[in-house]
Amino acid sequence: MRVNAYAAPAAGRPLAPTTIERRAVGPNDVLIAIEYAGICHSDIHTVNGDWGPQPFPVVPGHEIVGTVSEVGADVTKYQVGDRVGVGCMVNSCGECAHCRRGDEQYCLNGMVPTYAGTDRDGTTTQGGYSTHVVVDADYVLSVPDGLDAAAAAPLLCAGITTYAPLRRWGAGPGKKVAVVGLGGLGHMAVKIAHAMGTEVTVLSQSLKKQEDARRLGADHYHATSDPDTFTELAGRFDLIINTVSADIDTNAYLGLLTVDGAMVNVGAAPGPLTVNGFLLGSARRVLTGSMIGGIALTQEMLDFCAEHGIGADVEVISADRINDAYARVLASDVRYRFVIDAATIA
Amino acid sequence: MRVNAYAAPAAGRPLAPTTIERRAVGPNDVLIAIEYAGICHSDIHTVNGDWGPQPFPVVPGHEIVGTVSEVGADVTKYQVGDRVGVGCMVNSCGECAHCRRGDEQYCLNGMVPTYAGTDRDGTTTQGGYSTHVVVDADYVLSVPDGLDAAAAAPLLCAGITTYAPLRRWGAGPGKKVAVVGLGGLGHMAVKIAHAMGTEVTVLSQSLKKQEDARRLGADHYHATSDPDTFTELAGRFDLIINTVSADIDTNAYLGLLTVDGAMVNVGAAPGPLTVNGFLLGSARRVLTGSMIGGIALTQEMLDFCAEHGIGADVEVISADRINDAYARVLASDVRYRFVIDAATIA
Repeated sequence: MRVNAYAAPAAGRPLAPTTIERRAVGPNDVLIAIEYAGICHSDIHTVNGDWGPQPFPVVPGHEIVGTVSEVGADVTKYQVGDRVGVGCMVNSCGECAHCRRGDEQYCLNGMVPTYAGTDRDGTTTQGGYSTHVVVDADYVLSVPDGLDAAAAAPLLCAGITTYAPLRRWGAGPGKKVAVVGLGGLGHMAVKIAHAMGTEVTVLSQSLKKQEDARRLGADHYHATSDPDTFTELAGRFDLIINTVSADIDTNAYLGLLTVDGAMVNVGAAPGPLTVNGFLLGSARRVLTGSMIGGIALTQEMLDFCAEHGIGADVEVISADRINDAYARVLASDVRYRFVIDAATIA
Repeated sequence: MRVNAYAAPAAGRPLAPTTIERRAVGPNDVLIAIEYAGICHSDIHTVNGDWGPQPFPVVPGHEIVGTVSEVGADVTKYQVGDRVGVGCMVNSCGECAHCRRGDEQYCLNGMVPTYAGTDRDGTTTQGGYSTHVVVDADYVLSVPDGLDAAAAAPLLCAGITTYAPLRRWGAGPGKKVAVVGLGGLGHMAVKIAHAMGTEVTVLSQSLKKQEDARRLGADHYHATSDPDTFTELAGRFDLIINTVSADIDTNAYLGLLTVDGAMVNVGAAPGPLTVNGFLLGSARRVLTGSMIGGIALTQEMLDFCAEHGIGADVEVISADRINDAYARVLASDVRYRFVIDAATIA
């Protein structure tokens, strides 16, 4: 079937309306009528060519919420009318050690990204800036009724990206978590960490988002442009979630960790990290990273967010404003996520 | 009391016989007649001035085994004649959060190193290259009868330094551990990891220690000078214990870790580490460090080593050979630890 979509025709070129082919619904597939698709910073990196050559035209979008409009013969988990979501991956081998333990995102045979990837049938995947998508049911998430559809879309990437390290590194009552950067990822980290019952501190360049941070659930807020921040907070945190995609002074942040504290990078900073080994050894500090999360954990995150009434703070736009939205994301002028209304993709 | 010792009179100068003052045995103190003191690479760094100015003359030695010859009035844990040990620290505040949880080595008020440190009474600590030492009983370890005294001495530093991260990061049956470097620390890591039931691989520059490694308990051995090692072993290990004190290519080793694998630096490499952030995020790999271990864990390690018949491989020397031994340590010409017979300190 041919469906409407917005695609980047080449690297760095504006997105424009087009039509693309979606595969016929296979026995284990679900056809989803897309309602909303979030705009993730990585969509912009990809279509700008920052991450290397891409199979243009590229339809970005891996924060997808919609409604099931058709199911394959073997699909038992979903039925027509169900509210569902799709995140950053639409397939993996399902058989390797990583897939079997629920880490499909680290599939040893290569997980299939939702767009600009090569699916297991050899076709190029196209993402959520579109009216419909066909996805293997095993990679489709159930979006609980309690969640607003537009606010739920960013959970599929920004939500799981922050939920996964918060869970893994034990955020919860009695723990102190710092969130570095208050953008799309950071604002989700604050909401989720707060809902987990942990004490949350936002570390942001300036004080200008201080009120927002409190509203989102932060207990404390410090400007990283103030050097006193790094002396005052030395040894304070059990966990730092660094959502900044630019290079930061890793050692300055490591110094804020207590014994056994962990700093988890979830942004995609371009440069290598320069690490003072003494900061690691002198308090068993951990430096690590995290990339989205497995399917089961993503479902757990959606259920958690529904239970705690958590969605992203979104600005819903029509598809003809995608290119303007990209410019505003690059200028950090969004609080905190653009979501495309798929009804406007014509 | 004045006791015999070997001290470095100034930075970079050879060690020579001398006498030093030991404090009177206080109510919670133990007087130990030293039998053996291991030579640790950090002794050499300290007296050479590699780690900054020191309160010369310095009597090194923090791998001490001896016999209790006097106890203070309040000491109940030890009695005269007990075989005991002293490691890298002889005091800490005992009251901060880190001390209370058994991480005295990370005391927020500063742990007191066994030599070249300032004790809580303001005196300068002097180490184990000596006939006697007076130590607070809370920082004295019990050395089980089953352990050979000379072979036990290096456990107090090299043993706990490697045991701590092996325990913390889950070495045991079903796990794959790599030990980088087969020196004083590395050979202990191999023995302990093997005794924990884990599969052990030694990664050493050349193949020349291959037979030794097998004898020590390694299941596999690879030369890091062979680039194929890094492709062949990619994604293989759950845990890497890096014992090398020189700068190595951290990213090459991170690539050998599987999902959630950890690389723990226990050596003291001088330079900053250069880390490719993608290697961390793409498999939730952990980069961390570890510094000795708390008192309770050190006792656990000694008991574990006694139970499994583990001591260091030592070359016992008389005190007049200390300077030669230092030269040989710097030339990596020791398998695997020099231990000074304290009876020869005259």
